[in-house]
Amino acid sequence: MKNASLSDLEDQPDTGNRAPAGALPVPKGFRFSATIAGIKASGRPDLALAEAPHGASAAAVFTRNRLAAAPLVVDRAHLKRSSGRVRAVLVNAGNANCATGKAGIETAESVCRELGNLLEVSPEFIFPSSTGIIGVPLPAEKIVNALPTVLSQRADSVDALLSFARAIMTTDLAQKVAAESFAVRNKEVRLVGVAKGSGMIHPNLATMLVYLFTDIEASPKQLQSALKPAVDKSFNCISVDGDTSTNDTVLLLASGKAGVKIDQPGVRKKFQLAVERVCSSLAQQIVRDGEGAKHLIRLQIEQAKSTDEARIIARSIANSPLVKTAWAGCDPNWGRILSSIGNSGIALDPGRISVFIGPYQVCCDGQAIAFDKPAAHQYMTEREYEIRIQLRRGKASLTYLSCDLTADYVHINADYST
Amino acid sequence: MKNASLSDLEDQPDTGNRAPAGALPVPKGFRFSATIAGIKASGRPDLALAEAPHGASAAAVFTRNRLAAAPLVVDRAHLKRSSGRVRAVLVNAGNANCATGKAGIETAESVCRELGNLLEVSPEFIFPSSTGIIGVPLPAEKIVNALPTVLSQRADSVDALLSFARAIMTTDLAQKVAAESFAVRNKEVRLVGVAKGSGMIHPNLATMLVYLFTDIEASPKQLQSALKPAVDKSFNCISVDGDTSTNDTVLLLASGKAGVKIDQPGVRKKFQLAVERVCSSLAQQIVRDGEGAKHLIRLQIEQAKSTDEARIIARSIANSPLVKTAWAGCDPNWGRILSSIGNSGIALDPGRISVFIGPYQVCCDGQAIAFDKPAAHQYMTEREYEIRIQLRRGKASLTYLSCDLTADYVHINADYST
Repeated sequence: MKNASLSDLEDQPDTGNRAPAGALPVPKGFRFSATIAGIKASGRPDLALAEAPHGASAAAVFTRNRLAAAPLVVDRAHLKRSSGRVRAVLVNAGNANCATGKAGIETAESVCRELGNLLEVSPEFIFPSSTGIIGVPLPAEKIVNALPTVLSQRADSVDALLSFARAIMTTDLAQKVAAESFAVRNKEVRLVGVAKGSGMIHPNLATMLVYLFTDIEASPKQLQSALKPAVDKSFNCISVDGDTSTNDTVLLLASGKAGVKIDQPGVRKKFQLAVERVCSSLAQQIVRDGEGAKHLIRLQIEQAKSTDEARIIARSIANSPLVKTAWAGCDPNWGRILSSIGNSGIALDPGRISVFIGPYQVCCDGQAIAFDKPAAHQYMTEREYEIRIQLRRGKASLTYLSCDLTADYVHINADYST
Repeated sequence: MKNASLSDLEDQPDTGNRAPAGALPVPKGFRFSATIAGIKASGRPDLALAEAPHGASAAAVFTRNRLAAAPLVVDRAHLKRSSGRVRAVLVNAGNANCATGKAGIETAESVCRELGNLLEVSPEFIFPSSTGIIGVPLPAEKIVNALPTVLSQRADSVDALLSFARAIMTTDLAQKVAAESFAVRNKEVRLVGVAKGSGMIHPNLATMLVYLFTDIEASPKQLQSALKPAVDKSFNCISVDGDTSTNDTVLLLASGKAGVKIDQPGVRKKFQLAVERVCSSLAQQIVRDGEGAKHLIRLQIEQAKSTDEARIIARSIANSPLVKTAWAGCDPNWGRILSSIGNSGIALDPGRISVFIGPYQVCCDGQAIAFDKPAAHQYMTEREYEIRIQLRRGKASLTYLSCDLTADYVHINADYST
């Protein structure tokens, strides 16, 4: 397997285009485009289109928030009516079309009808997404007016793909792209993922839009069974602020244009690995871009009874404001970590827990042990580091990504809608 | 019932002594004291004593955090061995004696033995409490060395009570005291409550120490049945940052010196109300003093199926960083409130929810309605205000107190242990 991902460049998360144009293998059978519809107050591009001219098989995972936004209701209905086929994805940023009632659903439908007319397909082949403020009617006419422009600029180039990635951003500081490719008998299968999301990121998906494009040939069902475990290991193992958004969506589209079928010998496994790697890279990029975050913390939960238990404990740590503010202060305060584990609801014995901050063991059997505090503090000034928790309960382990809670997070979110 | 509480003075939470000395009815049968043991780095008073010279009946509620601190282990054992009788409460601030293993328990025991020797009672009549940093051995010798001083200053005065209230403070900006009294046939029953706590306050008790002193005559069992519902309605209905501490304790002591028995006609009800009022006042003072908090928000959850359900929904709102930062920005962003309700795990229909910010209805049937945004924003600049949620699911309702999440909270907690 050839790893053509952008992971080498991930250390520069705050810059613009990070991929040397040649390095990003755009899958065959897709065209991308973006334009300014005028929804974002900033005047930046806010309407993105991804089109499969010959259609694509689709699999999707949506938020578990009961307040699912209008486009998600439409997406589910469309995927059902189209039997999992998608011609075009249309994403607007700046307005979430959420808590907008029946009118919101009708608005999303009307935009799909307009785009369907222009592409000469039924509306159920359109997959709409929205991200931005909740509870404000979606300005459908702005989107409809921008459709001719966004259609006229479709291209299968890296630049077009990156313009898509930028137009879906809201509070993101960096665009998020990852790619993998692998060869099957002289043919190349490509997978590219594009994501947005920085605040509100939490298990079960949150203010996060992820689009994965591949040219493998696969049925919607085959795609779904590749996507679900990859999402569980990546996007469901990250947390920025513990909130779960109303609009989260992960969509995987397969154009089938690579000339490789997923059920050929040895292909399924390679494809699965590629999906997991791309999801994992995007998940890391999202946490790294957490609103106001200065540190990415890799929580290693070890010796749990089950991965479910490990995930509950990881979440309890990652969502504790006291733990997250200690991380912001580069403070090796393992007592707060232990306390947050005690709050997880798991009936564990704190007297068996050990905590390691990078190479420094800071707690053994639930108690203080001598450690080099200045060195541990120094280690925690790194932009990315690891905290390992051993529970001595079983054999399950889990990696969970989180970030610190900074005063900047408060500033960003105290002013968002005003 | 005569309300002699300090509630009239609660609008000045950042000042020192708030009670005119005459207004605070110190219950008979108690003496208070405080001194500097040298545990707090600040050099402020950090050792507090409350003594019932003739003993007192006791009831207690402790944290549900699995990482219960050493003094709580000792407290439970002592109350059992003493059949719910307490001679003295000894509280140190600056060190939580938590995650300190068996050694921590032995340290707490040794301090109790020393104080027991000086008071000529068995150690099981001593009730120890600790608050402060986790995972650092308790400096027992500092406490033991300070015992003669703290004993020599015992007094049944208001000043002594307030010195107790100040010595148990950690990051608190204000001491927290509340009182009630009522007459029964020319005799007066007095109840005074003292509390500490500002960060980490959350349902099921958190970095919160509460001591209630009364001169009614009651058995430990009678006290427990008065205390439990009062705690559920007050301290279990507040949230500052959603974290639950390892040391939380609510203790109710009854000296029996008022000459009034709890099972005299009509007394139980009056006493219950007094306990609930004092707990409620202290809970409000704690939230008002939330670390860095600028606003106290009274969440009214209405039309829930049960109070349990209402509490789950209230917590989901009150613990959402996005909601709390919107409150910090005085931002009437009801979408975040709706989203946090959607995340509560309750399978509700968001299309039935209405949200009111004070007098302004901002959401009807899960959708935006026109409202005076600048006026709602202006309303949210008040120090204390109300947000009301109607669920249209049932008849249960609940009042929950919370506060905003400010950049100051981050600053306070990013530097706590360093």
